[in-house]
Amino acid sequence: MCSCRVAIIGATGAVGSVLLEIIKQRNFPLNELRLCASKRSWGREIDFDGRSIAVEKATDQLLSEVDLVFIAAGSDVSHIIAPKAVKHGAFVVDKSSAFRMNPDVPLVVPEINATDMNKHNGIVSTPNCSTTQLVMALKPLDDINPIRRVIVDTYQSVSGTGNAAVKELTTQSRTILDGGIPKLSEYPHQIAFNTLPQIETFLDNGYTTEEMKLVYETRKILNRPNLSISATCVRVPVLISHSEAVHVEFEEPIQVKKVHQLLANFPGIKIIDQPSESAYPLPINAAGSDLVYVGRIRQDVSKPNGIVFWIVSDNLRKGAALNAVQIAERALEMKLIPKKERNLS
Amino acid sequence: MCSCRVAIIGATGAVGSVLLEIIKQRNFPLNELRLCASKRSWGREIDFDGRSIAVEKATDQLLSEVDLVFIAAGSDVSHIIAPKAVKHGAFVVDKSSAFRMNPDVPLVVPEINATDMNKHNGIVSTPNCSTTQLVMALKPLDDINPIRRVIVDTYQSVSGTGNAAVKELTTQSRTILDGGIPKLSEYPHQIAFNTLPQIETFLDNGYTTEEMKLVYETRKILNRPNLSISATCVRVPVLISHSEAVHVEFEEPIQVKKVHQLLANFPGIKIIDQPSESAYPLPINAAGSDLVYVGRIRQDVSKPNGIVFWIVSDNLRKGAALNAVQIAERALEMKLIPKKERNLS
Repeated sequence: MCSCRVAIIGATGAVGSVLLEIIKQRNFPLNELRLCASKRSWGREIDFDGRSIAVEKATDQLLSEVDLVFIAAGSDVSHIIAPKAVKHGAFVVDKSSAFRMNPDVPLVVPEINATDMNKHNGIVSTPNCSTTQLVMALKPLDDINPIRRVIVDTYQSVSGTGNAAVKELTTQSRTILDGGIPKLSEYPHQIAFNTLPQIETFLDNGYTTEEMKLVYETRKILNRPNLSISATCVRVPVLISHSEAVHVEFEEPIQVKKVHQLLANFPGIKIIDQPSESAYPLPINAAGSDLVYVGRIRQDVSKPNGIVFWIVSDNLRKGAALNAVQIAERALEMKLIPKKERNLS
Repeated sequence: MCSCRVAIIGATGAVGSVLLEIIKQRNFPLNELRLCASKRSWGREIDFDGRSIAVEKATDQLLSEVDLVFIAAGSDVSHIIAPKAVKHGAFVVDKSSAFRMNPDVPLVVPEINATDMNKHNGIVSTPNCSTTQLVMALKPLDDINPIRRVIVDTYQSVSGTGNAAVKELTTQSRTILDGGIPKLSEYPHQIAFNTLPQIETFLDNGYTTEEMKLVYETRKILNRPNLSISATCVRVPVLISHSEAVHVEFEEPIQVKKVHQLLANFPGIKIIDQPSESAYPLPINAAGSDLVYVGRIRQDVSKPNGIVFWIVSDNLRKGAALNAVQIAERALEMKLIPKKERNLS
């Protein structure tokens, strides 16, 4: 695999810092690493593999000097940076929602649809965290027994919002335990010891953008444009890892044993499902792991062709940074990332 | 309404203490109040309405001296106490699951099926907390457009487990914030900053007893013995109030506006549903309230006749103690509680 010059945009954020960790852990073939973030972080030194890298501004010059750009910031940043990077010939792996539903941009979970990258135009999007873990579990089942309908209710951790939200949960928790009144900043309501049935903003149909991302992104990744999906996305006072209660209806009957077998054989999935020992996926155990954990697999008592299960995964890893790095690794294997000549002018 | 001599079994527990509060708040017609609990609480004095009442053992003698017995303890206690109380002519309102599915025992939410009490044999059961708030929201809809299927995923607070679990959540939270390792006692796994997809014990079909209670109790209360229901019940790090994401499929199409109207007119329900202002039901706001809150009402994007909503209610009040007191109030109105002569022998 050839090496490449890499830039990370949003390197100081919740996903950015995990991205750095994963690049090192997986020994991603690096020739050079440039770290960018917003103005307040310029000049800050970040440790990477025993050396110190200064955070820079994502200038046109910088973008012209790299082969691969990971963008792990908000959609607004992606809208500005991605087209520039592409213009300079770089391959962009974008974590934001900016281009996910753009028909010219592959939306990729490498275990599922890496070949969609053959039609790339410089940008590949990685799905929303709650989508990635869901499609990982749906894909091996949909392949042998088409899914008719999916209902999913989520239990999403605050790290999905960012580092400030993690701080908010811990600070509010302490304040409440000490009998004080918690301050609000990242969320419209207290998140400590509470559940918030709102992630992102509301649309005219009463769903949130987060909920409709689950619908549209799942359809695109599974290449099932008319798949029926409905979700309620809820923020819970958990630091890392999203949980999902999933109810799937198939075209044909399917046995629990078969579901176990299909999921166990799918790369990146681990089954934890021994109810008698209270063994099932848990957010605190999934945090820091690369796997998507599935458990509580059972025949739906309300539907002949239905299966119910519980999915948990680290939203910062497979839900974001890991999937982005896997996309880049696969793109390198597929020789989609050209190693440009350095600009010597 | 006639007054009566009342005993509360489990008076020192999470539900028992709320029961005392509600009896006072609602000015429940009391002639006499006897408080019982397990051995370690005997002799303990409890304040009630400006006087002090000593906790006693629930003896046969005591049970023979009261007209109405609230049992707010485990099923094992109900199995022992309830038949004795009935033998002595008392009317029993039982909070446990002991008799709920017994065809000779009415399972009652007074707003829905108070008339089922006409066939009582001395015991009336109050449903499980997660069932009560669900059926409150389903009933007015099912009445005009039969429900075909319900999928519900819960976000249940630790007070449903009891006072020790409330203490466990706060203690674990503080330990984790201080960098320590939390101790486990009430739950098989850490509950602070985590989600547990297990409430109660597992059955052979892969569901928990809590999940199947939702199925069986909902069918019995709504008098819909074949209604299709499926649930995943999850404990979350919340102190009081259960939340539920609910997906309902009806026989006929139904408009969101109609659902709003039907729910708003049903006693005991309050709608909070202004997404643009981030107004929806929240556990921290429902705690201490007698109402069942419904919000996030929307047409299901995955089903033509489907509606999705979010229900939150105080699990100790409408989910337990309040419903028990409302059952007793209605039983008094229906003259089902005989005021026995005191045993002067």
